[in-house]
Amino acid sequence: MGSSSLIRVPLVRNISQLPEDNYGRDGFSHVTVAGSALHGMKEVEVWLQTLTPGSHTPIHRHSCEEVFVVLKGSGTLFLASSSHEKYPGKPQEFPIFANSTFHIPVNDAHQVWNTNEHEDLQFLAIISRPPVKVFTYEDWFMPHIAAKLKFPYYWDEQCLQQPVKDEL
Amino acid sequence: MGSSSLIRVPLVRNISQLPEDNYGRDGFSHVTVAGSALHGMKEVEVWLQTLTPGSHTPIHRHSCEEVFVVLKGSGTLFLASSSHEKYPGKPQEFPIFANSTFHIPVNDAHQVWNTNEHEDLQFLAIISRPPVKVFTYEDWFMPHIAAKLKFPYYWDEQCLQQPVKDEL
Repeated sequence: MGSSSLIRVPLVRNISQLPEDNYGRDGFSHVTVAGSALHGMKEVEVWLQTLTPGSHTPIHRHSCEEVFVVLKGSGTLFLASSSHEKYPGKPQEFPIFANSTFHIPVNDAHQVWNTNEHEDLQFLAIISRPPVKVFTYEDWFMPHIAAKLKFPYYWDEQCLQQPVKDEL
Repeated sequence: MGSSSLIRVPLVRNISQLPEDNYGRDGFSHVTVAGSALHGMKEVEVWLQTLTPGSHTPIHRHSCEEVFVVLKGSGTLFLASSSHEKYPGKPQEFPIFANSTFHIPVNDAHQVWNTNEHEDLQFLAIISRPPVKVFTYEDWFMPHIAAKLKFPYYWDEQCLQQPVKDEL
């Protein structure tokens, strides 16, 4: 993708004025803080995401690193190490909380839940190798090879008009 | 660096309990939130840095992407595009503020100042290609080839005992 395809955006941006969308998912909000498609990032991408009480991400994996920095609220990380199994299997559960950080090993299936009944869960998610290619599972026992690829991912669709042939 | 050299750390970490140091710089504080040397990250690294009123980073460049997310306070970004000059030259100035984001193009010399007299400036800095190799300038007119390489950088020194031969 050449830089000519980029919309010109100011270098310093007010995060609270950036476009926000739920991409059809109830209880979810996504803001691309610094993105491959929107801002020309090639090696890292930063998202601001919010989950209302009881809502959660899909169970999914991606072949990039991901670091979370929790800004508000609390919840639970479900993480399955996929290194030796044909499916994710029963995940480990980790409490997450405001001002906590954690990272997801490359290709490990994971899911973040807002398990707090009263407060939104808000975090920055930082990924390498943008734009992200997401493989989604219906449950923890779906085989890895059956996980469904979504690329470009929802928030990249408007900017990545021509899907790139997937190398995986 | 093999994973065998990593100190075992919990997956979910309380950022306020992570080691903090000023690395000999007055008015500066650095926390490695997710790091190459400390946590085994290979593609992204996240720092939490704080500058007291009047303090600033060195003028420096690095051949990785960097995204800032300002959490508290305000200040000024000085940025020199280095693409066609033998030295950084007079930088452009950009006001930065709480809840703003910006990124530094690869290899552009830059400096962040806390120009607010009353408040600390705190931000997350996210880099690709860790561990970082930093080239520091004494002023904006020092030739690029005279900029001084520091590797491993201060916060990586304790963990990266054997300097890797630099490929630049």
